[in-house]
Amino acid sequence: MTATMKLGQLAEFLGATVSGDPEKIITGLATLQEAGPAQLSFLANPQYRKFLPDSHAGAVLLKAADAEGFQGDALIVPDPYLAYARISHLFDPKPRASAGVHPSAVIAADAQVDAAASVGPFAVVESGARIAAGVTIGAHCFIGARCEIGEGGWLAPRVTLYHDVRIGKRVVIQSGAVLGGEGFGFANEKGVWQKIAQIGGVSIGDDVEIGVNTAVDRGALADTVIGNGVKLDNQIQIAHNVQIGDNTAMAACVGISGSSKIGKNCMLAGGVGLVGHIEICDGVFITGMTMVTHSITEPGAYSSGTAMQPAAEWRKSAARLRQLDDMARRLKQVEKHVEAVTQGGKASSDG
Amino acid sequence: MTATMKLGQLAEFLGATVSGDPEKIITGLATLQEAGPAQLSFLANPQYRKFLPDSHAGAVLLKAADAEGFQGDALIVPDPYLAYARISHLFDPKPRASAGVHPSAVIAADAQVDAAASVGPFAVVESGARIAAGVTIGAHCFIGARCEIGEGGWLAPRVTLYHDVRIGKRVVIQSGAVLGGEGFGFANEKGVWQKIAQIGGVSIGDDVEIGVNTAVDRGALADTVIGNGVKLDNQIQIAHNVQIGDNTAMAACVGISGSSKIGKNCMLAGGVGLVGHIEICDGVFITGMTMVTHSITEPGAYSSGTAMQPAAEWRKSAARLRQLDDMARRLKQVEKHVEAVTQGGKASSDG
Amino acid sequence: MTATMKLGQLAEFLGATVSGDPEKIITGLATLQEAGPAQLSFLANPQYRKFLPDSHAGAVLLKAADAEGFQGDALIVPDPYLAYARISHLFDPKPRASAGVHPSAVIAADAQVDAAASVGPFAVVESGARIAAGVTIGAHCFIGARCEIGEGGWLAPRVTLYHDVRIGKRVVIQSGAVLGGEGFGFANEKGVWQKIAQIGGVSIGDDVEIGVNTAVDRGALADTVIGNGVKLDNQIQIAHNVQIGDNTAMAACVGISGSSKIGKNCMLAGGVGLVGHIEICDGVFITGMTMVTHSITEPGAYSSGTAMQPAAEWRKSAARLRQLDDMARRLKQVEKHVEAVTQGGKASSDG
Repeated sequence: MTATMKLGQLAEFLGATVSGDPEKIITGLATLQEAGPAQLSFLANPQYRKFLPDSHAGAVLLKAADAEGFQGDALIVPDPYLAYARISHLFDPKPRASAGVHPSAVIAADAQVDAAASVGPFAVVESGARIAAGVTIGAHCFIGARCEIGEGGWLAPRVTLYHDVRIGKRVVIQSGAVLGGEGFGFANEKGVWQKIAQIGGVSIGDDVEIGVNTAVDRGALADTVIGNGVKLDNQIQIAHNVQIGDNTAMAACVGISGSSKIGKNCMLAGGVGLVGHIEICDGVFITGMTMVTHSITEPGAYSSGTAMQPAAEWRKSAARLRQLDDMARRLKQVEKHVEAVTQGGKASSDG
Repeated sequence: MTATMKLGQLAEFLGATVSGDPEKIITGLATLQEAGPAQLSFLANPQYRKFLPDSHAGAVLLKAADAEGFQGDALIVPDPYLAYARISHLFDPKPRASAGVHPSAVIAADAQVDAAASVGPFAVVESGARIAAGVTIGAHCFIGARCEIGEGGWLAPRVTLYHDVRIGKRVVIQSGAVLGGEGFGFANEKGVWQKIAQIGGVSIGDDVEIGVNTAVDRGALADTVIGNGVKLDNQIQIAHNVQIGDNTAMAACVGISGSSKIGKNCMLAGGVGLVGHIEICDGVFITGMTMVTHSITEPGAYSSGTAMQPAAEWRKSAARLRQLDDMARRLKQVEKHVEAVTQGGKASSDG
Repeated sequence: MTATMKLGQLAEFLGATVSGDPEKIITGLATLQEAGPAQLSFLANPQYRKFLPDSHAGAVLLKAADAEGFQGDALIVPDPYLAYARISHLFDPKPRASAGVHPSAVIAADAQVDAAASVGPFAVVESGARIAAGVTIGAHCFIGARCEIGEGGWLAPRVTLYHDVRIGKRVVIQSGAVLGGEGFGFANEKGVWQKIAQIGGVSIGDDVEIGVNTAVDRGALADTVIGNGVKLDNQIQIAHNVQIGDNTAMAACVGISGSSKIGKNCMLAGGVGLVGHIEICDGVFITGMTMVTHSITEPGAYSSGTAMQPAAEWRKSAARLRQLDDMARRLKQVEKHVEAVTQGGKASSDG
């Protein structure tokens, strides 16, 4: 099910130097603590170096510096974590779909499905959709009218694309994700919400990953746009008209409100929320569960929220926080008195 | 795919006044900045007025006041945003399903599907369900036993209704939404959680919209109730027994805990959380990511959380916050000393 | 559709004492306020005792102490809430699936489906999967390669299991849940994110419940592990490599980051977030929307965040909070001055 490879073959794949037996058989990957004699491991984070001497791993991906004095077999690479990333795909037990359309799938007469694409059971592909070579459409996927999916894309079972969603090459979409849903657009008429048709689409760049149950709404007028190399984790909400720059990554449970624009190479930790109609520049890191209420124009790290405390202490802090404006005014008052007194004191000792 | 209409026809549809050429052809909608000569635009927010003079829009929806001095073609209306909302549906490229049941759908013998309803591929409609005229059931939808869907409803592909979910007229439900899931009901028996069957249903009013991947749990005993005109955005969680009043709107990622009751015409911004068993009166606005821990009895705006700061400053604030109770006591102490000293000072100057 | 039982039969089922007419017919359950003469109710929370005298319930589950002086029919039990939990299943209108595979389902030739299991319409069961006796697989479920589902499990319609997900006995999974999605694993190579294959699986214990649209990612190398009796509510995110101890419960919208480990018998309220690579000991309770940024080693309750205020007051608090570090330093300064002055004062009054 997973690969069986010699250490020397892995070295060749990675362009690594073998230290030890190139004929050793490797059948899987594991952490230093858990790896057995047929498994390859890696040392990337220095705080795990303590596990290296006692590891039972068959071989270890190591930097040259970490390999000094190491008795076991190793592959010497400049970046062990990156080497692990590349090699992980060789040992992935994920089933590969074979090309062809499952007989149960419902494909519109004028949809174009490349002969080298795979379409799973109960998938629906609607009118005018175009699916390129090497694309996998999982079971229960729905591909709306006029959608385009570029070469090498992989859609897990049960992904839904509404109509007019355009997806680049090598895009991975996990189960339950919904692209092109109708954004939250309503005009208020005397207390009653009137729906605004969402007539834009969704445009997804190349090499994007979209996580489980993540939602990307279609644009109200123009497209919602996700740049190349963007990585969205699970349970994320991307509202209509949002734009996300290349190689930005968002951890799970982030919510981005409508028409906000996020730069390139940003990282949003889990649970971050952005209000609508703001702009985040390139290179911004936002820590977990931060509420972003205004634009950010300088790269750097940003936070909001309070530190966790035992609940009894927290209740005191929270109560005091509501008195903070009062405290600030009283402090100012005290400072004035003290200034008056100490000046008075000075005056009298001077006298 | 989208409509082609004359400006005069649009004026008639809206009851608007044409300023300019009623024969001009309009084929779509766009913002002032992006509209081309065959597109209609609108000016609703005064801060976009600066884009009006240079807009290439074929025509613009304007208030009479904004139309003064405008050289281009225009439709004069009292509320341009509302006019845009109404007209947007004419240009919506969303495919319209034709009436009839797709041959692959599985419909229970005793389910009632109106001849003027549409049921998509691989949909399942269970025993005793009733689907009214003009309803669209998208592909992969599951309609549980005894569910009722009122006239003109539109269910996107892959919507799940458990059994005994009753839905009013003209309700829109986006993909991945789940109505009637079994709420989080457990009784703790010596550390082990015993499941409580959730025997209530879900009752949804008329003109409701439910967003992508939003969950509305069934009631534990009676129904969970969503009022008329309620709009729920994506990724929302509505727990068992919740009641939501008419025309209340919630942005994405809101979570409402069990048995809470929310009034009419409320607005909850994104990421708001409510604890269970509380009551929010009519006309309340809650800002983004606020944690609502007690009932609200007065209309108005409410907030919690802290403002975003650069992370280094935030760490200081967060550390200080944990000292706040101590600071408050020390401030009080200082005030006493100062009062004693200044009174002492007064006394001596009196003497 | 629901049961019809005599009070005496219910007493026998529960091991309760009947106070009143054992021949009374009970057809359903309801709260004290809503119950009619054929419905059973219960008094668990003392604050509802006020509703007991005027209740129209046909009978009430009561503790012996609460039954004193009660005129109506009752079932006397040591724990009325637990009795209600047990009895609720008798009155559950949820349709029961009959054993057998729906003709539309697609089952791999080498998958093992027990003859006493039920597989619904359009379900897909892939190669090597094993489904035990008494399991219900709802419509539109996807059961990936080599998955195992233990006896008595119940999967609502539209549950997705990727390959290699192992599930214990009597596990309940609600619609839209996704187990085994590919976790957020990427190595950064000069600003570009390189995907790390997620080669571990998911291991779920016995008697677990997983809520609507909840996601449990597969492990990066080893399995993500959910212990026995764990209850996960809706819209939860469990990242790769997380471990959750027995009988821990999490309310909706919780997010657990990668490789974090949570003990037994913990309770996480709604919207809580955990950063990755931390450890929570047994018996911890975390209040709603708390951000957990470090390990917890002592049982007890923990919180973060601020209390809700009217928005105008909140804005002042939030502004002051950003001045808190400055205030703390000024307070210290004032204390020094006051100390100097009062000591000076003391000295002079001593003199």
